[in-house]
Amino acid sequence: MPIREDVVVSLLFTVLDLIGTFAFAISGAIAGIRHRLDIFGVLVLSFAAATSGGIIRDLVIGALPPASIQDWRYVGVSLLAGLVTFFWHSRVSRARQAVLVFDAIGLGLFAVTGAGKALTYHLGPIPAALLGMLTGIGGGVVRDVLVSEVPVVFRTDIYAAAALAGASLVVAGNTLGLPPQPLAIAGALVCFGIRMLAIYRRWQFPVARSPESPAE
Amino acid sequence: MPIREDVVVSLLFTVLDLIGTFAFAISGAIAGIRHRLDIFGVLVLSFAAATSGGIIRDLVIGALPPASIQDWRYVGVSLLAGLVTFFWHSRVSRARQAVLVFDAIGLGLFAVTGAGKALTYHLGPIPAALLGMLTGIGGGVVRDVLVSEVPVVFRTDIYAAAALAGASLVVAGNTLGLPPQPLAIAGALVCFGIRMLAIYRRWQFPVARSPESPAE
Amino acid sequence: MPIREDVVVSLLFTVLDLIGTFAFAISGAIAGIRHRLDIFGVLVLSFAAATSGGIIRDLVIGALPPASIQDWRYVGVSLLAGLVTFFWHSRVSRARQAVLVFDAIGLGLFAVTGAGKALTYHLGPIPAALLGMLTGIGGGVVRDVLVSEVPVVFRTDIYAAAALAGASLVVAGNTLGLPPQPLAIAGALVCFGIRMLAIYRRWQFPVARSPESPAE
Repeated sequence: MPIREDVVVSLLFTVLDLIGTFAFAISGAIAGIRHRLDIFGVLVLSFAAATSGGIIRDLVIGALPPASIQDWRYVGVSLLAGLVTFFWHSRVSRARQAVLVFDAIGLGLFAVTGAGKALTYHLGPIPAALLGMLTGIGGGVVRDVLVSEVPVVFRTDIYAAAALAGASLVVAGNTLGLPPQPLAIAGALVCFGIRMLAIYRRWQFPVARSPESPAE
Repeated sequence: MPIREDVVVSLLFTVLDLIGTFAFAISGAIAGIRHRLDIFGVLVLSFAAATSGGIIRDLVIGALPPASIQDWRYVGVSLLAGLVTFFWHSRVSRARQAVLVFDAIGLGLFAVTGAGKALTYHLGPIPAALLGMLTGIGGGVVRDVLVSEVPVVFRTDIYAAAALAGASLVVAGNTLGLPPQPLAIAGALVCFGIRMLAIYRRWQFPVARSPESPAE
Repeated sequence: MPIREDVVVSLLFTVLDLIGTFAFAISGAIAGIRHRLDIFGVLVLSFAAATSGGIIRDLVIGALPPASIQDWRYVGVSLLAGLVTFFWHSRVSRARQAVLVFDAIGLGLFAVTGAGKALTYHLGPIPAALLGMLTGIGGGVVRDVLVSEVPVVFRTDIYAAAALAGASLVVAGNTLGLPPQPLAIAGALVCFGIRMLAIYRRWQFPVARSPESPAE
């Protein structure tokens, strides 16, 4: 559990966590609307997208029950984002863009809070950076698996790499003794920036040359 | 761990849990047979459908190892249900109906036991109701994801909402100090009833008006 | 936590675990290359395939944080296997065979280490054998779900059964007081052998006679 001096840090991470929750919940709701789910399905998918990353993080570090289940604010924020999106999507034709932007915001915030919470629980630098990445990509992976799409993370844009970069910056700065608040904000911005640039400039990592197409 | 006075309640929930396990195992086996899996695949899918909800519940509240893994009765009940279904499905053309009915039974029982066990582990009312819903829908979601179908929960029938209603009734009654046994039975019946009515009367929640079809 | 006398056993299982990690990471990388993922996607899929089985195992027995996240060697081995596969797959047309062979190696090793670690954590014989099976099949299931394929475990070859056989042998031998090292090796070989024979002799379990085809 977080010690006394970490109270402010802990509060900061809770706030960022809630903003990330809101952003991922919107991305989940938009995905649900695009797949013509009913309102309850949209809300469940909002919740799944918003909380899966944090639930994975908390399961892994043993912070049980996970914050996003125990703390009503995560539920409330998810529902609010789902309802707002459901009733206020008049021009949902812009949805594909919006999913990507909100997804990137959530990715950056969760990567940072995942790494930060892992450090608070005394994980080493490599596990903490890795867990930041997993926290960031978890919500999007679960969201996409649930609507039977190959997860965004596995399509050829820089995605998990952006999360890893943001998380690594937090971990590296922590090792150097830098103050956590600006670090967290910098990490989230780095992740968001890389992701947005990757989308708009169509940055891609290399793909292996393969003479063979997928099995199916 | 459950305290002394909870022994009877605990026993009740174990019994309901085992019945829910049986029901979901049948739904898993039928899904496996419909996808022409071999007998071992059918048994694994029975086990996955029957235990995933409870495993998720126990992971979340930190009741490790999860009851459905540690307690041989869950394994036994799953295998029994899988074998019975495998060898006794002569008129499997009725399977689609049967999957829905057994799925609804499991949904109601797991929603109730999930909420009840969460209360026993001192979760608050909102997390407990939510965890009841997750316990109820978990098995069906994992079952459907494993055979590459979009989960029932996301098709346009009332499903997760029924689980949430049953779980909420248990939580509300508990807050009012009502005795747990009749509460659990009432909650399971409410969930089962809503789900069955939703299927046969084709109740549906509203779907957002979307000018756009899914990406793929 | 493992007691003093288990140090050697523990070391043995770590080594086998790392070899299994390497094998599953290769299978993940090959699957990623076949689906034309970029290099980072290939590495993430390598990591997911390599560690999901062990993560499931550690979550279930409460060994948190999971070894494969906390211990940099698992990460390193996964990355190494992913990179080697990415750059050294000139004749990837042989990939389908190679996936199956490496998958079978990982299956055997993880089944054995899963059962062994479960026994170390004082689970009973049935749960330990079952957890060995789950540890063995977990990585492959997650890998296949992530690239939207029906998991290998559910196609009609003997797969989970092989893992269960290997894990059961370890558990049975442990009950009889046999020494763990040769037991582990025997268990892994039994699992690998059954799986390979099943592939090359096209062994299959019976499929239920069903007049009906899948819903979709």
